[in-house]
Amino acid sequence: MKNNKKSGTHLSPQSPNDSLTYYYQCSTCRKKYKPEFIEKNDHCVCPECDKENEKGMPLKGVLQIFYDYEKLKRKYSHSFINKITPGNIFAFSDLLPLKNNVSETFRNLNLPTNSLKKINYASQQNLFILDETHNPTFSYKDRASVLVAAKAMELGKDTICAASTGNAASSLSGVCATVGLKAKIFVPNTIPDEKLLQIKIYGADVEKVDGDYDKAFDLAIETSHENGWYNRNTAFNPLTIEGKKSGAYDIYLQNKGKMPDQIFIPVGDGVIIAGIYKGFYDLLLLGLIDKIPQLIAIQSENSSAIIDYLQTQKFKLKKASTLADSISVNAPRNLYLAAKAMQASEGYGIKVSDQEILEAEKQMGKELGIFAEPAAAAAWAGYEKYRENNKNNEKKIVVLITGCGLKDATNARRIVEEIR
Amino acid sequence: MKNNKKSGTHLSPQSPNDSLTYYYQCSTCRKKYKPEFIEKNDHCVCPECDKENEKGMPLKGVLQIFYDYEKLKRKYSHSFINKITPGNIFAFSDLLPLKNNVSETFRNLNLPTNSLKKINYASQQNLFILDETHNPTFSYKDRASVLVAAKAMELGKDTICAASTGNAASSLSGVCATVGLKAKIFVPNTIPDEKLLQIKIYGADVEKVDGDYDKAFDLAIETSHENGWYNRNTAFNPLTIEGKKSGAYDIYLQNKGKMPDQIFIPVGDGVIIAGIYKGFYDLLLLGLIDKIPQLIAIQSENSSAIIDYLQTQKFKLKKASTLADSISVNAPRNLYLAAKAMQASEGYGIKVSDQEILEAEKQMGKELGIFAEPAAAAAWAGYEKYRENNKNNEKKIVVLITGCGLKDATNARRIVEEIR
Repeated sequence: MKNNKKSGTHLSPQSPNDSLTYYYQCSTCRKKYKPEFIEKNDHCVCPECDKENEKGMPLKGVLQIFYDYEKLKRKYSHSFINKITPGNIFAFSDLLPLKNNVSETFRNLNLPTNSLKKINYASQQNLFILDETHNPTFSYKDRASVLVAAKAMELGKDTICAASTGNAASSLSGVCATVGLKAKIFVPNTIPDEKLLQIKIYGADVEKVDGDYDKAFDLAIETSHENGWYNRNTAFNPLTIEGKKSGAYDIYLQNKGKMPDQIFIPVGDGVIIAGIYKGFYDLLLLGLIDKIPQLIAIQSENSSAIIDYLQTQKFKLKKASTLADSISVNAPRNLYLAAKAMQASEGYGIKVSDQEILEAEKQMGKELGIFAEPAAAAAWAGYEKYRENNKNNEKKIVVLITGCGLKDATNARRIVEEIR
Repeated sequence: MKNNKKSGTHLSPQSPNDSLTYYYQCSTCRKKYKPEFIEKNDHCVCPECDKENEKGMPLKGVLQIFYDYEKLKRKYSHSFINKITPGNIFAFSDLLPLKNNVSETFRNLNLPTNSLKKINYASQQNLFILDETHNPTFSYKDRASVLVAAKAMELGKDTICAASTGNAASSLSGVCATVGLKAKIFVPNTIPDEKLLQIKIYGADVEKVDGDYDKAFDLAIETSHENGWYNRNTAFNPLTIEGKKSGAYDIYLQNKGKMPDQIFIPVGDGVIIAGIYKGFYDLLLLGLIDKIPQLIAIQSENSSAIIDYLQTQKFKLKKASTLADSISVNAPRNLYLAAKAMQASEGYGIKVSDQEILEAEKQMGKELGIFAEPAAAAAWAGYEKYRENNKNNEKKIVVLITGCGLKDATNARRIVEEIR
């Protein structure tokens, strides 16, 4: 690891450089860094805190990206916001760590404008789904992949490398194919067949690792360094969190500024929930909202590291084993920021069983006409559990449905066997 | 069959009733009918011409729906059109055979607003894809299913029945689940596994027929009559053609009125191409466009009944056998209107082989980041064949991609085997 102390390019917490449009800040030691230092040296996490990182464990020194909010308040007024079309990740261009607005280059990767759907279900008056099953590659991960691809282009990289349990890789592969970049993918053996298929259809160079996601994660970082590739490992690359914040913007825009009280989010490595929190945090700093909704983390009872950490304030490595591959994680890389997002929003966690997840997937298809993958259905399972104890609820709730069920036909088949 | 001659409810071709907002007209004998007569008696094709229909053969007496275009010209001016958001099937509400605008009821089934994508490919300057792979149930069929469901609701029917090779059924099932209707489905044995899975996930009552699509088609009509269900058999129910016309509106709207020269359309039973033609015909009658683009029909060389018919002016029943299930049809039910759409638009047909279809699917994934199902990739294969002989082409071209490849993983796997 390079020692940045002598390079003089980092910012002290007290003196952000006024000419910068954005800067990186370590979520562990709070040190601030100039973009050039982080990006040109291929750093991803804080170079100081990275020294303490152990393989296969939650990451210390995850970087966050901040802007000159006071300056941007003048631009991002309510009247300006009203003119923004949802689904364009680059619409809030000054709130992204990019030099130019690349909206037009990524136009074909715009997301649906109507993903927030009011649901008629069980007499609930204020129930919405953020339906990400119709995204460019059919999962929430596109929000991160698109931003990462834009940064890779800006840095003149022609290849992006990532480890993934499935969706991040199929997303990265599809995004790269659309804009003409190369994708190099490392996946664990447990990847669902349809996700591997999708990665291959998009023409990515994919390698099955003889081991789990954690092994693939480390291998992707090593190989990226060796080859000078841009790395999209989730949490490790801070743009994955920054990309995923746009879900919060979409909830805000499609609600026309009227905020929900609670958001139910499926949680694996903790990047989506931290991203959603960051999006709302931006809006809070801009004075556009006055409160961040309660973020409710849904985890599998057999992959519940973040919920467990919040109870004990200690991380204990435990082998995850849930059929919901996208949230099956031994060591959530973004554990600390995810936990912070839950605490700061006064949220909490709900654990669900595999049986409840499958039941939720079945119910969503039949009752709502939404075909969700297991990890996404987990959020609905969590909501159902919550609803049992909160019958006459007036709260405005959004359930985040992160991926399409066609990406995991194997598990969907288990449900229809029962239906027959 | 009921004899409508004595009922006095049909219109003579010379005297359309001025108070009607729309009427049905037989595409064979040109007789006009009041909506009440057709809809209340559960007629679908012209009751006169239906007498000549034979099982398993192209349909005579397919009904078309027309409006009072002179009156509507005043409303659908260029300035009005400019305010319409694409993707809302009910946006041109006066050009639909419905009593009320049901836009709000079907809000969650809106289609993408940005489905028309400008493609950077092989130095082509004016190449677009109409990408229907992100529709509510991931295929073009949603355009028909949504309109049919709206009509079923208007008629007070609680069940819609359909025969399908896969997409029409998965679409109908998803649409019904979303709006709270029941779906009864008949499918042939050859249905791809993932499409059957999708139908079941949406909770439809599905029956595998011991036979081909033609057998399923007839069984669905019989069973609908017996049970008083609304029937969505494609071509047989004229609203399937009328629903599919909205693709033309979307091409027009997303092009901001600048029309393409040619549209490449995958063709099986002929309903999509006839629907697209009808949409442009509406716009022509409204004076919004002055020419209908050339419609180029792409068929499998082993399921090419419509192209063959145009060459000989005779229909010859031949067993279809292509891996592109959505365009594998022995007897295209909408043969005559499809042929008319091609002739009237000065279009023509291109045949492609299964190998070319798979090659196109592979190429689309890798080069464009679009995961298409085989029937959709057929349109791209046809375009590629055309491009070989038309290198420096300045024409503005739209290729219609009708369905998502995740719906047919079996065939996609054949491609990645080759990639490995």
